[in-house]
Amino acid sequence: MLSFCRRLRIKGSHARLPGTQVLKARCYASAGSRPGFDWEDPLLTKDLLTEEELAISETAERYCQEHILPRVLQAYRNEHYDPKILEEMGDLGLLGATIDGFGCAGVSTVAGGLITRAVERVDSGYRSGMSVQSSLVMGGIYEFGTAEQKEKYLPSMAKGKLLGAFGLTEPNHGSDPGSMECIARRHPHKSGYYLLSGSKTWITNSPIADVLLVWAKLEQTGKIRGFLVERRDCPAGTLETPAIKNKTGLRASITGMIHLDDCPVPEANMFPDVEGLKGPFSCLNSARYGIAFGTMGALEDCIFHARAYALERKQFKGNPLAKYQLVQKKLADAATDVSYGILAAIQVGRLKDQGKATPEMISMIKRQNCDRALHNARALQEIFGGNAVSDEYGVGRHVANLFVTQTYEGQSDIHSLIIGRAITGVQAFA
Amino acid sequence: MLSFCRRLRIKGSHARLPGTQVLKARCYASAGSRPGFDWEDPLLTKDLLTEEELAISETAERYCQEHILPRVLQAYRNEHYDPKILEEMGDLGLLGATIDGFGCAGVSTVAGGLITRAVERVDSGYRSGMSVQSSLVMGGIYEFGTAEQKEKYLPSMAKGKLLGAFGLTEPNHGSDPGSMECIARRHPHKSGYYLLSGSKTWITNSPIADVLLVWAKLEQTGKIRGFLVERRDCPAGTLETPAIKNKTGLRASITGMIHLDDCPVPEANMFPDVEGLKGPFSCLNSARYGIAFGTMGALEDCIFHARAYALERKQFKGNPLAKYQLVQKKLADAATDVSYGILAAIQVGRLKDQGKATPEMISMIKRQNCDRALHNARALQEIFGGNAVSDEYGVGRHVANLFVTQTYEGQSDIHSLIIGRAITGVQAFA
Amino acid sequence: MLSFCRRLRIKGSHARLPGTQVLKARCYASAGSRPGFDWEDPLLTKDLLTEEELAISETAERYCQEHILPRVLQAYRNEHYDPKILEEMGDLGLLGATIDGFGCAGVSTVAGGLITRAVERVDSGYRSGMSVQSSLVMGGIYEFGTAEQKEKYLPSMAKGKLLGAFGLTEPNHGSDPGSMECIARRHPHKSGYYLLSGSKTWITNSPIADVLLVWAKLEQTGKIRGFLVERRDCPAGTLETPAIKNKTGLRASITGMIHLDDCPVPEANMFPDVEGLKGPFSCLNSARYGIAFGTMGALEDCIFHARAYALERKQFKGNPLAKYQLVQKKLADAATDVSYGILAAIQVGRLKDQGKATPEMISMIKRQNCDRALHNARALQEIFGGNAVSDEYGVGRHVANLFVTQTYEGQSDIHSLIIGRAITGVQAFA
Amino acid sequence: MLSFCRRLRIKGSHARLPGTQVLKARCYASAGSRPGFDWEDPLLTKDLLTEEELAISETAERYCQEHILPRVLQAYRNEHYDPKILEEMGDLGLLGATIDGFGCAGVSTVAGGLITRAVERVDSGYRSGMSVQSSLVMGGIYEFGTAEQKEKYLPSMAKGKLLGAFGLTEPNHGSDPGSMECIARRHPHKSGYYLLSGSKTWITNSPIADVLLVWAKLEQTGKIRGFLVERRDCPAGTLETPAIKNKTGLRASITGMIHLDDCPVPEANMFPDVEGLKGPFSCLNSARYGIAFGTMGALEDCIFHARAYALERKQFKGNPLAKYQLVQKKLADAATDVSYGILAAIQVGRLKDQGKATPEMISMIKRQNCDRALHNARALQEIFGGNAVSDEYGVGRHVANLFVTQTYEGQSDIHSLIIGRAITGVQAFA
Repeated sequence: MLSFCRRLRIKGSHARLPGTQVLKARCYASAGSRPGFDWEDPLLTKDLLTEEELAISETAERYCQEHILPRVLQAYRNEHYDPKILEEMGDLGLLGATIDGFGCAGVSTVAGGLITRAVERVDSGYRSGMSVQSSLVMGGIYEFGTAEQKEKYLPSMAKGKLLGAFGLTEPNHGSDPGSMECIARRHPHKSGYYLLSGSKTWITNSPIADVLLVWAKLEQTGKIRGFLVERRDCPAGTLETPAIKNKTGLRASITGMIHLDDCPVPEANMFPDVEGLKGPFSCLNSARYGIAFGTMGALEDCIFHARAYALERKQFKGNPLAKYQLVQKKLADAATDVSYGILAAIQVGRLKDQGKATPEMISMIKRQNCDRALHNARALQEIFGGNAVSDEYGVGRHVANLFVTQTYEGQSDIHSLIIGRAITGVQAFA
Repeated sequence: MLSFCRRLRIKGSHARLPGTQVLKARCYASAGSRPGFDWEDPLLTKDLLTEEELAISETAERYCQEHILPRVLQAYRNEHYDPKILEEMGDLGLLGATIDGFGCAGVSTVAGGLITRAVERVDSGYRSGMSVQSSLVMGGIYEFGTAEQKEKYLPSMAKGKLLGAFGLTEPNHGSDPGSMECIARRHPHKSGYYLLSGSKTWITNSPIADVLLVWAKLEQTGKIRGFLVERRDCPAGTLETPAIKNKTGLRASITGMIHLDDCPVPEANMFPDVEGLKGPFSCLNSARYGIAFGTMGALEDCIFHARAYALERKQFKGNPLAKYQLVQKKLADAATDVSYGILAAIQVGRLKDQGKATPEMISMIKRQNCDRALHNARALQEIFGGNAVSDEYGVGRHVANLFVTQTYEGQSDIHSLIIGRAITGVQAFA
Repeated sequence: MLSFCRRLRIKGSHARLPGTQVLKARCYASAGSRPGFDWEDPLLTKDLLTEEELAISETAERYCQEHILPRVLQAYRNEHYDPKILEEMGDLGLLGATIDGFGCAGVSTVAGGLITRAVERVDSGYRSGMSVQSSLVMGGIYEFGTAEQKEKYLPSMAKGKLLGAFGLTEPNHGSDPGSMECIARRHPHKSGYYLLSGSKTWITNSPIADVLLVWAKLEQTGKIRGFLVERRDCPAGTLETPAIKNKTGLRASITGMIHLDDCPVPEANMFPDVEGLKGPFSCLNSARYGIAFGTMGALEDCIFHARAYALERKQFKGNPLAKYQLVQKKLADAATDVSYGILAAIQVGRLKDQGKATPEMISMIKRQNCDRALHNARALQEIFGGNAVSDEYGVGRHVANLFVTQTYEGQSDIHSLIIGRAITGVQAFA
Repeated sequence: MLSFCRRLRIKGSHARLPGTQVLKARCYASAGSRPGFDWEDPLLTKDLLTEEELAISETAERYCQEHILPRVLQAYRNEHYDPKILEEMGDLGLLGATIDGFGCAGVSTVAGGLITRAVERVDSGYRSGMSVQSSLVMGGIYEFGTAEQKEKYLPSMAKGKLLGAFGLTEPNHGSDPGSMECIARRHPHKSGYYLLSGSKTWITNSPIADVLLVWAKLEQTGKIRGFLVERRDCPAGTLETPAIKNKTGLRASITGMIHLDDCPVPEANMFPDVEGLKGPFSCLNSARYGIAFGTMGALEDCIFHARAYALERKQFKGNPLAKYQLVQKKLADAATDVSYGILAAIQVGRLKDQGKATPEMISMIKRQNCDRALHNARALQEIFGGNAVSDEYGVGRHVANLFVTQTYEGQSDIHSLIIGRAITGVQAFA
């Protein structure tokens, strides 16, 4: 077996990335044998990770702190997403990392989660951009694609040279994709082709994607099928992917719509077997796992900054804010939820690799971790008092982002009903 | 007694304002004799208002909906505050409205609160801009100024032609202004003058203000005193008021710093008698009252939009979101809190006019109404699902704004301790 | 107009009640002109009361503190309810106090609420016993009874010499009384009589009631009608009212079932006109108003005891618990909610007297006040630490009681849906 | 190595216990290979247990469901604790199970936690009785006792034939035992003896204990030391252990005081080396671990009953309560918290066995699991509506018990400050 380092293409140093410098302030995955209480990992979750996973986490954290953290403030302000980030991630082997073969690292589900945590520690938008590439599109192709589709797309997607987008949600159908209106009908003249028509919205990466995995109902069967729409092959006017601007969160990621107007797609670009919601839901399941793990990184970053601020900021007779009970309680609550959330994410990751994870488990950790990340990030933001309104502390950005993670890929209330149905056997959606 | 309409200078129509049109969609202060349940005023708080107060509210609401609502989206996106808004408000008599004389309307405290509610229904930032002018600066001059100071400043401030700012908070002293470092020392050469030095931060309107009410410690006594610093009289280099950009909330208001470097201020511009924190705290008390009432307007706007969206948006078998229990509970919670909050604001307003209100009462309603407005606005935002990330629904803007209202003019935890001290007689700040 | 004092039969002293003594420790409705912050009435709600209401409140508080408080600990431990309490209350004119005529005091709705607050300050169970008599049965007879029924029952019920119970809830139909199974069919032999059959459960006072207002479906119409079942007239075996023991709350009240087995009731004992759920819902509406006001009394008592304990109990270097921020926050939260809750109750009471109150308003204040009373009582209970497990502090008893108030006469979730329906126009019960 | 079954003395059947019957309704630790979602173990925590641990859990669950569940309702009503329960538990090897040797089973910390979970699934009071025996007293003797003390006490305590109590808390010193007043002074006449004086309160099992581990300050050093006080050796009048009755929770356990009045204790009964709070805190640490795991059992029982009730109870058009979104959310929340809580308890148990657990970790899981158990139990209780007031559903009993678990062995706020101190390095107790 190839070692992880070779598979992740970390050959010696990070020197080829611009702006590399020694990471000293924060070290996430290293410590190891400390016997005491580690506020950055209160329940010693690192103990549950393999050497390989620790190394992957360390690599990902280092890259994110050194290379994407310095860009995020401006990116968020300007709603600018630099697609080179995906190429850099690809360079390090971070894309589609849980896929085995096709130039991918083939690491554990937990290792994949650690990567999302590292990225989301910087920004949920960057993690979203990566999740779409890795879980939704590459994961979809790997699970449902033909051998040809895999060979054609996965290697260059793994390198971040070919970018993907995932088109499921429609303007009128958010929580209920089964009612989608996007349609694929047989091309009336051109054999072996379908014509796709319809609109998708809130599609991360759509404006920059080279290949768009679009879910549409096959006219003749009424069943949902997946199509790989390649932008370069689309005749003018059949595909448009306008960006949606002025977002209230995830501004460091790029989001757009997909408009298809009789866009011709070869039958060879359709997923061969999967029909109905099973396909997109399976992709979402992987992505949701990444969100469950990733949001813990965002919350950890909030704790890091709130703690530092509370220790540094002094009010009333020179006491640091950290001395106030109401401040300590917020920190204690957040540290608890992050520890619990990581344990749950590791557990479900292990079960996933053993084939024992169910979608309801993913719903449970996606819902809970997003909810708790958001709740605690908001409470920690209060520690900054009036200064919280400055975007330079980063916590406000996390708060805005985490709200979005709570609403996408299954809003929390919807997941409540999924879990409730699994517990009671009764469905309560309508 | 002059009628309110004359005092508020509503002489016939709003025709002189650009873009006037008939307000039809929403009518806040009119209804009256409906016997049924009014979801816009569930506990019929209107019943507690006088005819005059209803008329003021109607005027303010109409102006805000017709004239400032159309500007807010762009203003917020671009962090642009149009000072003409204060002039328009002055034109209608909305500035310093509770002040009697000096060209002010002399309306009740509750009427003043209704004005803030109308403005904050559009945006907390616009309300902040107005609160600074009305409560903090005009209120301060009215309460503590000399007869000359009142005559000199209040009439043109009431018209919105002279703009004010209030300089209390310093970079290192947020919740604890008593430790301020800003200093006023006797001018070594120029008799009857003080030299002011120090920095203030998070000062609403500072970059555009003509007159800045700056609180500083008098060198010889160590006591805090108030100074009216007129920008046009400051020698170059002695006063700077840079704007703070990239805010995470209140982006439709303008915020800045105040840097004073041996800035000469005539003794005649010092408040004559008030010493210590009594001065600024009294001003804050009025402003906080406005916040307590104003945030209810922001929450009402969130309810309005969330309800409309829930009725219009259909998911799962064509049911509107409004049919879902989890959605209805969010609406019921918000409607309850807004009703209770308005009742409390009216009660404290009445007591204030009777001289029975205490600062702790203001702490209580400021804290509770901000907290509940924020909490419910966040819950209502969830109703929008993924669409919440679009800034066009407005709820995300309110959420971002309301977080700031919770942290400024006394962060909620600080107010908890103020109330706690009043209940127990024991102080727990340090 | 008779003065209130005569109507409430307070002729000079409370001397006729055993154990009377001067009330000094606590004085609820007296203070008046204090200019400062009054932690027992933070928003000076007393200011909204008339002289008469203040006097009624004072009378009720004095009676409750002097005469029923000393009995409650044993009563709760032993699940014993002393029916003499209702007679004492009748003696003071506290029963059916809002009814005009028939020996009742004819006071305002707010005055009626102040009475429930006084009683519930001691115990929700005692208030329940009174509410059944006053609101559910006397109120029902007054609103829907014939002139004969009123004359026959109200005067002796007002004196507490004839006790009532209200039979609506059935074992299988709690939140949904419209599905009741209790039936009234024409007596096959005896003209002018109905035979009632069916079971009611969770009926306060049923085991001791002389007259039971039972709601049953008329066989011929299928419509719900109200019947006044007099125990002394029921042949053996046709009426049974076993007590339900081992309750987890409201143990100082007596609760039971009603079993009717072809129980003959004269047609003259049926309410003449009211059909359907309008009848019982109207009675419940009055009772719910009393709960909304009453629970505030229970919460006030929790604040009183928690504050006293926090000031007296010292931990860590001799500091009273009151010095801890986490303790102060609990007190501040509770004081806020109780102030807001009382304002809302007063507002709805005033509207009720003007004919402007709607059932949804009652749902709103019943739900909110019960929820907040319970939430805060639980938080205050934490202040007692391990000592909370002793029943002598009373807070645990209030917590257990308040949970029940949240579930009876409309569980909070049901009221959420009532309010939600009123806001959206869409019903979400099923 | 002896097999677990021999160590736990399960030789063939449970036949020697009265009333044994086949357990069919609920099976907690068996399932195993089910591929789907298991609402009783949503995140498949069983997967983390060894075969031995599963067997121990099964044994404990079976015993508790068959033998102590049938007694708890009456025991709780009557505040009666049957000491035979400890003997039965001893018989099965459940007491001091994590101790190696001295007739104890020597199982893992997690296995010990599974036992507390099984017992607390029935009642927190029964678990408290066991925790005192196992963790506080046996654990204390095992960790700090002399070889002679261990030999003398542990074997008969393991069999449940000698009962222990743990005397730390004093009437005036709950959260702050360091200020204790209980004193041990050298016997003025009798060499090798100490005289103990002082009072302890809220001592589980004190009225029935044979040996009381009492912590007192040694007069000559002022340092806290541990003494094993044997009841049978105490002269009349020197030891009294009155029961405390009328508790609001944990009524199925017995609680009392310890009064020592110059009670002579031989020096041989003092723990040899441990001084200060290290001794009692170490014992509490073990007990707190048991609480963290145990409370999850109580919450699981609440879920079990609430789910069953929600499926069975029908309202509005015959829909089961389980169909209501507001009900499903409560179940989903509880199931999530219980899964997360068990994962955290397992993790800390594993770390404890590896010597990596710190007291702050125990604080974290004790606080969080008690808080979440209580919070969710209360929410689930709401599902029962008015019926919740009947003690036969058991949920009200769990709610009352869980409140106590939140306040004893470190009230949650205290644990917040312990965690906060560990995170910030700043202490905020005073």
